[in-house]
Amino acid sequence: MDNRSYVSWELMNSFLIDAFVGYGVPKEDAAICADVLLESDRRGIESHGCNRFKPIYIDRIKKGTLLPTTQIEIVKETPTTVVMDAHDGMGMVASHKMMEMLIEKAKKNGMAGGAIRNSTHYGIAGYWTSMASKEGLIGLTGTNARPSIAPTFGVENMMGTNPLTFSLPTDEEFPFCLDCATSIVQRGRIEYYAREGKETPAGTVISEKGEAMTDSNEILKALVDGTAALAPLGGIGDELAGYKGYGYAAVVEILSAALSGGQFMKALSGVDENGKPKMYHLGHFFFVIDPDAFMGRETFKKTAGDICRALRASKKAPGSDRIYTAGEKEYLVWLERKEKGVPVNKGVQKDIIEVRNALDLPYKFDFEESV
Amino acid sequence: MDNRSYVSWELMNSFLIDAFVGYGVPKEDAAICADVLLESDRRGIESHGCNRFKPIYIDRIKKGTLLPTTQIEIVKETPTTVVMDAHDGMGMVASHKMMEMLIEKAKKNGMAGGAIRNSTHYGIAGYWTSMASKEGLIGLTGTNARPSIAPTFGVENMMGTNPLTFSLPTDEEFPFCLDCATSIVQRGRIEYYAREGKETPAGTVISEKGEAMTDSNEILKALVDGTAALAPLGGIGDELAGYKGYGYAAVVEILSAALSGGQFMKALSGVDENGKPKMYHLGHFFFVIDPDAFMGRETFKKTAGDICRALRASKKAPGSDRIYTAGEKEYLVWLERKEKGVPVNKGVQKDIIEVRNALDLPYKFDFEESV
Repeated sequence: MDNRSYVSWELMNSFLIDAFVGYGVPKEDAAICADVLLESDRRGIESHGCNRFKPIYIDRIKKGTLLPTTQIEIVKETPTTVVMDAHDGMGMVASHKMMEMLIEKAKKNGMAGGAIRNSTHYGIAGYWTSMASKEGLIGLTGTNARPSIAPTFGVENMMGTNPLTFSLPTDEEFPFCLDCATSIVQRGRIEYYAREGKETPAGTVISEKGEAMTDSNEILKALVDGTAALAPLGGIGDELAGYKGYGYAAVVEILSAALSGGQFMKALSGVDENGKPKMYHLGHFFFVIDPDAFMGRETFKKTAGDICRALRASKKAPGSDRIYTAGEKEYLVWLERKEKGVPVNKGVQKDIIEVRNALDLPYKFDFEESV
Repeated sequence: MDNRSYVSWELMNSFLIDAFVGYGVPKEDAAICADVLLESDRRGIESHGCNRFKPIYIDRIKKGTLLPTTQIEIVKETPTTVVMDAHDGMGMVASHKMMEMLIEKAKKNGMAGGAIRNSTHYGIAGYWTSMASKEGLIGLTGTNARPSIAPTFGVENMMGTNPLTFSLPTDEEFPFCLDCATSIVQRGRIEYYAREGKETPAGTVISEKGEAMTDSNEILKALVDGTAALAPLGGIGDELAGYKGYGYAAVVEILSAALSGGQFMKALSGVDENGKPKMYHLGHFFFVIDPDAFMGRETFKKTAGDICRALRASKKAPGSDRIYTAGEKEYLVWLERKEKGVPVNKGVQKDIIEVRNALDLPYKFDFEESV
């Protein structure tokens, strides 16, 4: 049962830009934000695409916890590094500027790194690393987020879902792109389950009593209350090496805050001690490496492609007919959606109409008959 | 039942150096190798310490698959990068030289990265990142290895246990150091289980038929034969996000070979098509980042320490009384072993005596009465 409707990429892009502009985002910035959200849908990562457009961006602008205009302050700059303060503006706009700077620096100096403080949700982490891989460069990024993951042997949500994301250029049509949270499931995925009315798989979320939780709406509330937490990659306890996922989450938590001199953990909850909304003050980090400063971009791409091809060609498990490499499924989704358009479920359709009406924008969508 | 004996650190260090020298390793290089092995024991990582001294180093030198003298060729060098060819010499010696160069470059230019090809086992990955964190710098390294990990939905051992290792300096007595394989268990751990006569935990190794294996000696053989493989972090299949661990293993496989222009996967098996021993031709990569090119080393250390302390102080799971941060257990082991000495089990005792006798070295060990 597909309760989704499809909207053309051009129409949705245009609408998103106008909607962001309607809420005070400068046009050029709005185009960046729309592209980041749509890239998520292009890759089939609905949890971070149009699904989040209203609740995570528009609603926060209205609430005042996200500023539509982004005052980017360059706190520090060297030939290989940049530290920015985004002053609670659009994280996607600051990150875009950051990656442009780092790509230029990496091409000149072989390597470059940057960190942003006082930022906000920057969309899919893989968008930023892909900016590098499109240029034949290696991209690495991470971000902290509202506390969700409990440490091994703990039950308290202490760290964000903290993606540790790599894009590596290959000689194929698409890069190797590993864009994943260091928890088993991430918050956006649970938001998506909630919107779809689905349960969250057991074993991925623990209550403060150490019990498994599966009700997606309850989990989202409990994650904010601090009465539930996500298990790190590797699972609860140390039997299957959950301490490794916990360790990678901590690496991201530390690099996101310590390089930028920004905030971390409980300070990122988005609510103050009285339960009132406050700024998120997120931190991100980014690294760009130019293989030309090593054995060359073509050598890198060829080897990366050879490794991906060998992995796919390796012996399948009984009952499995295909092995994927990171970024491949996302590319296949794009090939399928290219003509079809952006899938929008009932919840997103409602969001779109609400924003369209509030701003009195001259848009009409095919799905409106059925809403 | 502790079947281990303890040897003083000084005595063991002196013995290891003389043993390496006895097999043709230059004295200065031998001191590096001994320190890397002992650092593993200091941290409680027996799987990579004296346990490996004979089988992984001495025996291979004798077999001719590891050259005792290390001809380090600088293939490429820029102000921020280094590519080396280790010409099948001691990986630990080449890695030590690499980290010295990168630390100097990072202090000068903010960031530095390096890759080594045609190398051999470089010991615990955390040794190299700790060289950076001791100087207040961030260290990141990874290495490929004999194929062991199967991709998600696959059963064939395609990638090494491929550690992705970080050391982050803190304001505490010890750094945050996450030194772990991207499989659930690593090969060295299974070697250790085998030497201790223990089973390998179920669910961490799969046979080519997709069945679980637990016999440690059988697993080691099957990993070489290619009839078993290690599951990536996150486990078999995709239910608990095994594709993430698989993805990180692939990141390490790609970076280890593609930056250095080196070999990868099946080419690293250590045996040729006729089953005869051959050179390993491993690849490693290293990155060093100076927080002084961001918001300063002291800011970094303070934030990293604050995050570690907050994690440890967070709410424990029922039945758990302590939460650790990465590198903490290793530091606690060192505090305990500092006075006690290096623990050596029966197998290692036998190795030591064998090597001592073969080289006619003037050493006498307390454990000899009981061997």
